[in-house]
Amino acid sequence: MSRHDQLFNARGIAIIGASDDPSRPGSQPIAALKRTGYKGGVYPVNPRYAEVGGYRCYATPADIKGDVDIAVIALPAAGAVDMVKICGERGIPYGVVLGGGFREVGEAGLALQNSLVANARAHGMRLIGPNCNGIANIHSHMYACFGSMSRTPLLQPGPVSVVMQSGGFGYGMALSCRNAGIGFRMLIASGNEADLSAPELIDLLIDDPETKVILAYLEGVMDGRALMNVGEKALKAGKPILIWKAGKTTQGVRVAATHTANMTGTYDIWRAAFRQCGIVDVYELEQVTDFIQAFNAGRFPRGRNIAVLSPSGGSAVVVSDAADEFGLHLPALGAGTAAILESALPHAHSRVNPIDLGAGGISPSNRASFDVALNALLDDPEIHQICLMTPTSIGDRAIAGADALSEAVKRTDKPIFVFSTLLRDVIPEVLDRFAAAKIPVLHSPVRVARAAGLLADYAEIRNGQASRMEGIKQSGKMRPVVAIPEGATGVLDEAQSKALLAAVGIRVSKDLILTGEKEQAAQLSEVNFPVAVKILSADIAHKTDIGGVVLNVSNQQELEVAIDRVRANARSRAPNARIDGVLVSEMITDAIELIVGIVNDSVFGPVVMLGMGGVYAEVLKDVTYRPAPIGVGEATEMIQQLRSFSILEGVRGKPASDIEALAQVIALVSQMGWAQRDRLLGMDINPMMVLPKGRGVIAADALIVLR
Amino acid sequence: MSRHDQLFNARGIAIIGASDDPSRPGSQPIAALKRTGYKGGVYPVNPRYAEVGGYRCYATPADIKGDVDIAVIALPAAGAVDMVKICGERGIPYGVVLGGGFREVGEAGLALQNSLVANARAHGMRLIGPNCNGIANIHSHMYACFGSMSRTPLLQPGPVSVVMQSGGFGYGMALSCRNAGIGFRMLIASGNEADLSAPELIDLLIDDPETKVILAYLEGVMDGRALMNVGEKALKAGKPILIWKAGKTTQGVRVAATHTANMTGTYDIWRAAFRQCGIVDVYELEQVTDFIQAFNAGRFPRGRNIAVLSPSGGSAVVVSDAADEFGLHLPALGAGTAAILESALPHAHSRVNPIDLGAGGISPSNRASFDVALNALLDDPEIHQICLMTPTSIGDRAIAGADALSEAVKRTDKPIFVFSTLLRDVIPEVLDRFAAAKIPVLHSPVRVARAAGLLADYAEIRNGQASRMEGIKQSGKMRPVVAIPEGATGVLDEAQSKALLAAVGIRVSKDLILTGEKEQAAQLSEVNFPVAVKILSADIAHKTDIGGVVLNVSNQQELEVAIDRVRANARSRAPNARIDGVLVSEMITDAIELIVGIVNDSVFGPVVMLGMGGVYAEVLKDVTYRPAPIGVGEATEMIQQLRSFSILEGVRGKPASDIEALAQVIALVSQMGWAQRDRLLGMDINPMMVLPKGRGVIAADALIVLR
Repeated sequence: MSRHDQLFNARGIAIIGASDDPSRPGSQPIAALKRTGYKGGVYPVNPRYAEVGGYRCYATPADIKGDVDIAVIALPAAGAVDMVKICGERGIPYGVVLGGGFREVGEAGLALQNSLVANARAHGMRLIGPNCNGIANIHSHMYACFGSMSRTPLLQPGPVSVVMQSGGFGYGMALSCRNAGIGFRMLIASGNEADLSAPELIDLLIDDPETKVILAYLEGVMDGRALMNVGEKALKAGKPILIWKAGKTTQGVRVAATHTANMTGTYDIWRAAFRQCGIVDVYELEQVTDFIQAFNAGRFPRGRNIAVLSPSGGSAVVVSDAADEFGLHLPALGAGTAAILESALPHAHSRVNPIDLGAGGISPSNRASFDVALNALLDDPEIHQICLMTPTSIGDRAIAGADALSEAVKRTDKPIFVFSTLLRDVIPEVLDRFAAAKIPVLHSPVRVARAAGLLADYAEIRNGQASRMEGIKQSGKMRPVVAIPEGATGVLDEAQSKALLAAVGIRVSKDLILTGEKEQAAQLSEVNFPVAVKILSADIAHKTDIGGVVLNVSNQQELEVAIDRVRANARSRAPNARIDGVLVSEMITDAIELIVGIVNDSVFGPVVMLGMGGVYAEVLKDVTYRPAPIGVGEATEMIQQLRSFSILEGVRGKPASDIEALAQVIALVSQMGWAQRDRLLGMDINPMMVLPKGRGVIAADALIVLR
Repeated sequence: MSRHDQLFNARGIAIIGASDDPSRPGSQPIAALKRTGYKGGVYPVNPRYAEVGGYRCYATPADIKGDVDIAVIALPAAGAVDMVKICGERGIPYGVVLGGGFREVGEAGLALQNSLVANARAHGMRLIGPNCNGIANIHSHMYACFGSMSRTPLLQPGPVSVVMQSGGFGYGMALSCRNAGIGFRMLIASGNEADLSAPELIDLLIDDPETKVILAYLEGVMDGRALMNVGEKALKAGKPILIWKAGKTTQGVRVAATHTANMTGTYDIWRAAFRQCGIVDVYELEQVTDFIQAFNAGRFPRGRNIAVLSPSGGSAVVVSDAADEFGLHLPALGAGTAAILESALPHAHSRVNPIDLGAGGISPSNRASFDVALNALLDDPEIHQICLMTPTSIGDRAIAGADALSEAVKRTDKPIFVFSTLLRDVIPEVLDRFAAAKIPVLHSPVRVARAAGLLADYAEIRNGQASRMEGIKQSGKMRPVVAIPEGATGVLDEAQSKALLAAVGIRVSKDLILTGEKEQAAQLSEVNFPVAVKILSADIAHKTDIGGVVLNVSNQQELEVAIDRVRANARSRAPNARIDGVLVSEMITDAIELIVGIVNDSVFGPVVMLGMGGVYAEVLKDVTYRPAPIGVGEATEMIQQLRSFSILEGVRGKPASDIEALAQVIALVSQMGWAQRDRLLGMDINPMMVLPKGRGVIAADALIVLR
């Protein structure tokens, strides 16, 4: 019996703090195990009772003779701490600590939680919780849990396992899936995650052969990289992880921070991390149920083209709208396919994609010609998914459609979706046919397009993953990394920051540093106009905001005025800043301004950031992130993801920018951020001047913050 | 009997082309009228039969003795044209023409359609269709229709009426509402709208006392202003209009254009029009059902603040995320309310908003203290809506919650929403209680936030509408309007366009127009540097793209070079353009560049457009529209709606811009666009230079296109 098997398929469960009062957590797992016919040993523990719920009750776990793989501990916090020690001594490998009173209540609780973990570790025992609803295996009726999870409606067995940082909402997600006919394997409420964390639990689930899909509700994790690692492992195993990350917005982050003590981080960074490791980011319950149904069909598209068949012209228009939104294309049909449709569907209103079958739709009488058309689409390699829109179809016609698609799925591996607004009360036999054929029937055209789009996203990420990770590893080897001088800490000023960048091979603007009044005259004679004049101070992060920058200085006289002005502004508007001097920089013309940076995130570690520069793009937040390090290919993808990417390609008669050089610098910055993650807190190259194609990029200003 | 009553409550219906074959349109209305017990007269017409469906069948409508208010015509196109004439002669006021073969099939069909309308008009008869599913009154079982509308599942009576340009998808919307327990009044499939158009039908429905909510599926309308007028009328009547506008995206527009011959227009303009007249823009079926349930409760929030009560911490986080997205706020609770909650909810995990009730949730035993807390929130004027998140609550606890809220609604007019993932199979008695209390139970926290947000939007628009329209009318009177010179047509060049703007009182940049080589020398001596040099040609709309603009020209020598350069570029890159000369314009510094324009839309007529200028903002499409004319208040709202509005307020140490002057110019432009809508095809002021507060705005370039 493997280690995780003891948790997922426990041979016996001790319920400590057992009770006969159905309102108490100590009674609910016992009742559920009994009611559902759990085959393993059930061992209530409570010195006050001889029997609980029809089972013999033990005074202490030590008295139990049978195999006990899980101790469900339903005791107040202090009692739970002691009990973990006793269970550890008894050799019980897993404890599920239901009660609260730990980290979530403050300092005293945190001390108790630390004792709890110490007691477990002393005996190699692993814990779920505390402050959680517990764990259940739906296949084997192993209900080591209380609350909603232990009560009706019970879930049906199936391939989906769930990890939830909130038992209430997490279980609500599971119930929503149940309403859509989806079945479950393991449910794990992870609570305070004092020992086993969500990424570790997901890791165990990937190894579980009965788990095919993992769904998680997360408010935060301590170690974002661990989550990314399980994401990659799941992708290789072909098991999608769907995560509902809560605490996405300002109000949500505030509430999540008070609800658990988890790190919530910036949602943009979470999304970037999810994307990179193939985790499916979910944000609505229907999206979860629709994607899981689509995934469970076991079919993956080879591209983003869909063909739409519809007896309802309106549904065809609406799904076309939604296809745009989710990055799907309705291609024109090739000559061969078009010719077959032309002869098979003489009464159709439209035989181009979307195909408007007309009021005749699909019926028993035209079934044969519909099959010819459908097969032509299935045989067309340019069509990757098929959507049938039958919003109001009932009776013989609906059955004819269901039969046609049920036959078709046998001879294709292309995903097929159906839109109908009708429920089981009206078309039970139709829905049974679709369910048997594993064809998702979704309740709106928008949901059809969204599910097809998500499936295409997932297929793309799964196909592209191997090469992406390879690129990172290769590039990681290729690049030298700068040595940050020993002892340097805090904010580096512009000149110091640029020196570090230059040391890794990033071209920086030519600068003249004026530190005193005296040397100026001689130095200034060397200046090639036009120049930018900037105050030099590690204490002023945003020089422009205090009038510390003058651009386009074109002669000696203007230069002297500008130097005086930035010094005067700094004195009056940043009186406490230490001024290191004035920087006179070459003006870089013909360049597009971007921002490249490193954020050393508390959850995900170093993350590379790319944004369009200039005040408009900053206000409009045209920014993208990737967990560092990345290779040049991934950096190129980041650039292409900018909403204003077309500016870099050249618009309004402007030349194309040196995207290649930019991608190389982004990759280099990301690798520097990763290699120096213990020292580097943050870095901003702003602006990063991107010159026309072939002429490279120049860091015109930079700010580095060291730990 | 009022005119529209004859359509909505026909005393008798003739079904022309009556048939006993259930697959034929001519049989289906007869079967539905019979099956549902329609109380009016049913008069099949077909010379080949003596009886159809148990009713006497007539050879011609003229033979019918009883009152006939609707003729349902189920004949091929040519036959329908003749039959309308016969029905008109018989004095039947309304015809519903089911069959196709008209405008949708091309020229010949359009000619038939024109004859159809001419025959109807000759006798004052009004038509629905052709090429439509018909009309039904669910209250009186008046099924003058075929297809899904005439079959099971039948809709339940209720307050919602539907107009649908696609019978299939439109009726699918209705069926989705049915699944959510929503009842209906009229359903009208408008087909080709040869006579009665969607706006006219909506207008009739607003007058129908039994209709409280109007739902429409539209692909396009011929007259956008007519739609806006009914929107305003409905808003005054307190009857929301929900419109699903199809053909929103590139692929959708293409498909909609082939599906019906309706004008689809730009979705941005549709949205602006909807907003201005209070139409609710819908884009998903769940959104439709959730909003209608919320509206049917008859409660409207006085602001955008919500209080969230939840036994599930996770649900509280998720709804807080979604609240941000839909513009709702979770305010901190006032001292009074906080104190009551503090004492009433001692075991709650959090007594700030959102209120995490803890695992105890709501139960029969703590019901009294929950009531105290709930009442404190209901009494708090800073709380406008209440959301209860009980994703997994069942049994006694769920009933206690339902009872508590059902009591509460009696003493408040604040909207209340409930989130539960459970369906009727698990909590029938709970859902019955909520339904009786008209409390919407929605299946995700996101849906709760979206419905509450939409309700707040609708309440805001309804409250603000009167003053908004007043503003337009006032400002319409205040403003003088320029006279466009008689005979002028086509594109006006920059100088001509600016002259027109100056004539309405819009300040334009000081320009020098150089038309020939000879005068240049003398004129150039007058120039105040720096200046911009621009090619002058009505044939070159985008001067920058062909190198026709040189900015920041700072002396005589540069000026001569610049003039030569723009002339040379125009010659080589726009060889066919007629060159009218070169414009030397003052350079306006310290300004923010915007774009103000008029689009004379084919559906909505003149629409005023405002966008941020500069290449970034243009690429990022930071643009907003309003149907013209608008007043200064509405123009100010447009400015505030720009995503980069903060730039105008002053960021990064820059001064605030003259937003007031900008709003005045936008209003003026909108009024000019409206007054000159017969002459003015389009106008672009780009850039519109907005100077710092108090210094006004200057049109630095302009292009006017006349019809």
